[in-house]
Amino acid sequence: MLVDDLDTPAVICDLDVLERNLREMAAYCRDLGILLRPHTKSHKIPEIAHWQLASGAIGICCQKLGEAEVMVAAGIRDILIPYNIVGKAKLERLARLARRAAITVAVDSEETARGIAEQLQADGARVRVLIELDTGARRCGVQSPEEARALARVLVRLPSLDFQGIMTYPSRPEAKTFLEETIRLLEADGIPVATISGGGTGLEEISREIGCTEHRSGSYVWEGRSRVRGREDLHPDRCPLRVVCSVVSTPAPGRIIIDGGMKTFASYPPVPYGYCVEYPEIQIYAMSVEHGHVDTSASDHRFRVGERLSFIPLHQEMCLNLHDELVGVRSGKVEVTWPVAARGKVK
Amino acid sequence: MLVDDLDTPAVICDLDVLERNLREMAAYCRDLGILLRPHTKSHKIPEIAHWQLASGAIGICCQKLGEAEVMVAAGIRDILIPYNIVGKAKLERLARLARRAAITVAVDSEETARGIAEQLQADGARVRVLIELDTGARRCGVQSPEEARALARVLVRLPSLDFQGIMTYPSRPEAKTFLEETIRLLEADGIPVATISGGGTGLEEISREIGCTEHRSGSYVWEGRSRVRGREDLHPDRCPLRVVCSVVSTPAPGRIIIDGGMKTFASYPPVPYGYCVEYPEIQIYAMSVEHGHVDTSASDHRFRVGERLSFIPLHQEMCLNLHDELVGVRSGKVEVTWPVAARGKVK
Repeated sequence: MLVDDLDTPAVICDLDVLERNLREMAAYCRDLGILLRPHTKSHKIPEIAHWQLASGAIGICCQKLGEAEVMVAAGIRDILIPYNIVGKAKLERLARLARRAAITVAVDSEETARGIAEQLQADGARVRVLIELDTGARRCGVQSPEEARALARVLVRLPSLDFQGIMTYPSRPEAKTFLEETIRLLEADGIPVATISGGGTGLEEISREIGCTEHRSGSYVWEGRSRVRGREDLHPDRCPLRVVCSVVSTPAPGRIIIDGGMKTFASYPPVPYGYCVEYPEIQIYAMSVEHGHVDTSASDHRFRVGERLSFIPLHQEMCLNLHDELVGVRSGKVEVTWPVAARGKVK
Repeated sequence: MLVDDLDTPAVICDLDVLERNLREMAAYCRDLGILLRPHTKSHKIPEIAHWQLASGAIGICCQKLGEAEVMVAAGIRDILIPYNIVGKAKLERLARLARRAAITVAVDSEETARGIAEQLQADGARVRVLIELDTGARRCGVQSPEEARALARVLVRLPSLDFQGIMTYPSRPEAKTFLEETIRLLEADGIPVATISGGGTGLEEISREIGCTEHRSGSYVWEGRSRVRGREDLHPDRCPLRVVCSVVSTPAPGRIIIDGGMKTFASYPPVPYGYCVEYPEIQIYAMSVEHGHVDTSASDHRFRVGERLSFIPLHQEMCLNLHDELVGVRSGKVEVTWPVAARGKVK
């Protein structure tokens, strides 16, 4: 089957570019001397996670428990969930999962830690635990090294939890003091810090500089070794994801309508929307729910109804999360159709 | 089962409010003297479509062929797809669907019309056809009454197509002359215009004023009879959709983190994100992919980890399109769990 035979809009992936992105990040982290733990929320596809492990990653990262359930079901054995897991339903699911794979979770409060410990003890399971530090991102995380120490003192006494270390996101130079002081306080208490986890694609070197032992990178699968900041960073040699659309209307000169809109690209105004591989000079300038509005005035090409165009979406991870399937291609031929198995697993 | 037993984030729907929205729009269109054809892209759930038909709608509308396939499979017999259907794969699907239900499509070009006619003739199927007029929205549609006449002259001669009339979107006062002149030209040619289709929730009265016979409304199921323009329009008596989240972190005074982010709410900066039913004074001020960042500084309540909060999402249709299930509730009890059967059907 050829890409040209796929019904549109189709989300496809250039496997050569994907594989190069995986290979280059693995080599980069190896050279830096930091362990790589890919964040699979960016793709949600078990086979890509296995490829990441085969390229040298030490395990994977999932943002939600539901994603981790999908990955364990696909045979993956070492998963970090850097998320506070709360609520009876989720704690029971965590306990079941922890009996099948080595699960590490992050916590930033005694309430969360006690909830996990009680459920896991009741169910005869164990998890490794990291303390999340808020080193400036103002999301989750304890606010000071002293708070980290207070929480660590609780954690090491709770049943069913194996204290493993600390984590932060994103990795930033300002975090160095916070991390070092936390480690100093914990070691003074006799609590060893085996893992120091940093995160954020493009921040691997900073992670190493601030003392992290491992790094969580996600979007490098779609964006290469640095983050895409805008349309100018989208390039087919770097970004393997494409949305193949059909032209459904050529209503007036300089303007065409394609069959992909917000429910295909996941883009909202006022951001730009993507990059056309065949005609980089054209621009998606607006989006309806199911239509893309394209300005073709800069192009000499005469666009026809039924013609197919490939766009690199700007919001790659959010785009893929809308779709049930990703088609892997090489040189215009379909090589694999992957279910986006963890799509929508927000629980 | 109670709403409080659902794992979070859960997307739920207050069935009393939903039913009132359906009832009120049906009565309003009846009083106006315009036929109602609900746009099911807003919910993608066959049973809600059946409820809309039971409340007096003449048929439904689907934006993509894939949505229509789901609705026909659920027993719905009259569907308008106001979309140019192009490409071999889709034309074959359209032909198959048109043998099972009364399908109307919109076209704005001879290429699209010829593609449909050829495939349907080959497959022994027929569809009704509307010409889409661009009355100012600058999306699809012919640009003038003369263009509409030229296309109509082609359509009435093509096999397997039953010319049915004209459509525009959204309905606006400026469209009146365009519609009237088109009808005059077509009738002078002896081409009867049976259907004049307008669209847009809140624009029903304008549709009637510009001469439409039927109206496509979608978002009224979630927003009532006028569109939600911003957070100030979100109210639990009007908006039945809720995202139930858990507080996963209370890292610092005046700030909590909930377990729903962009992959749950479908919201992007810089728009506001939703309305908290229990504590309207608090505000989601930022979103990560899987976290919501909530400013609680205006509230006296002391939020706890594990506490559950219900938010009306700002982008209701886009939010629901991320989720596989919608839970219908009444007075805090679960009454139905609906698969969002046409979710992700962008083809």
